[in-house]
Amino acid sequence: MRIYFAGATRDGREDVALYLELVELLRAYGTVLTEHVADEQLTSRGESMDDRAIHNRDLTWLKEADCLIAEVTTPSLGVGFEIGKATEWGLRVLCLFRPDSGRALSALIAGSDRVTVREYQDASQTKRIFDEFFAAR
Amino acid sequence: MRIYFAGATRDGREDVALYLELVELLRAYGTVLTEHVADEQLTSRGESMDDRAIHNRDLTWLKEADCLIAEVTTPSLGVGFEIGKATEWGLRVLCLFRPDSGRALSALIAGSDRVTVREYQDASQTKRIFDEFFAAR
Repeated sequence: MRIYFAGATRDGREDVALYLELVELLRAYGTVLTEHVADEQLTSRGESMDDRAIHNRDLTWLKEADCLIAEVTTPSLGVGFEIGKATEWGLRVLCLFRPDSGRALSALIAGSDRVTVREYQDASQTKRIFDEFFAAR
Repeated sequence: MRIYFAGATRDGREDVALYLELVELLRAYGTVLTEHVADEQLTSRGESMDDRAIHNRDLTWLKEADCLIAEVTTPSLGVGFEIGKATEWGLRVLCLFRPDSGRALSALIAGSDRVTVREYQDASQTKRIFDEFFAAR
């Protein structure tokens, strides 16, 4: 199982510690192609590679992936872009959202029948969500 | 010319007055399908329609559009999702970004060869950008 994990990078790093917990949990289900998203060294200025190289690398990984797992609480253009592509390419998509944030999830994500949305409060609740998602394949 | 204008709705309304200026300028080039994005009555809780109906309406409009014009300064999952779809569907895509915000634009947007990115400071500078974009067709 090749897993593409997505979370905000340039659009905000407030959830990076949580991303790391999620990536560590996801390793039990397959290979996480995008572990750098959870790297605390990665700032909101992003990576040192140029934009074209990052775009091409990420879309190559997304094309190779079996599923996209996205943490969608922090609004992010890049994560939305990846979900848009993944739903076109037929990947299974799981979006994790924390309603405690006070935010409302985009209707384009919440209203897509190609996306599974699960609400949670903290990482300890995601193992059950992941078990259910990966068992359904 | 059918124009799909995209800007943050649930993910933040700080730029709504600017969206209105952009929509008014865009009316000189064609029909703007998504004028509600610039409606100051629309709050960050979004519209009263259910998510599935909003998703289906917006994607129907996007499929019918000739181009997507997106204001991308406020990070937004919905806007990223629309850019992801539009680049798959072969629409022309123009993204407007204000570097004065202090933010860095997502590499997935900035690094896509299917997206034209133009930086600006305020709406008065966008007429020249729109003239150039629509003339290039």
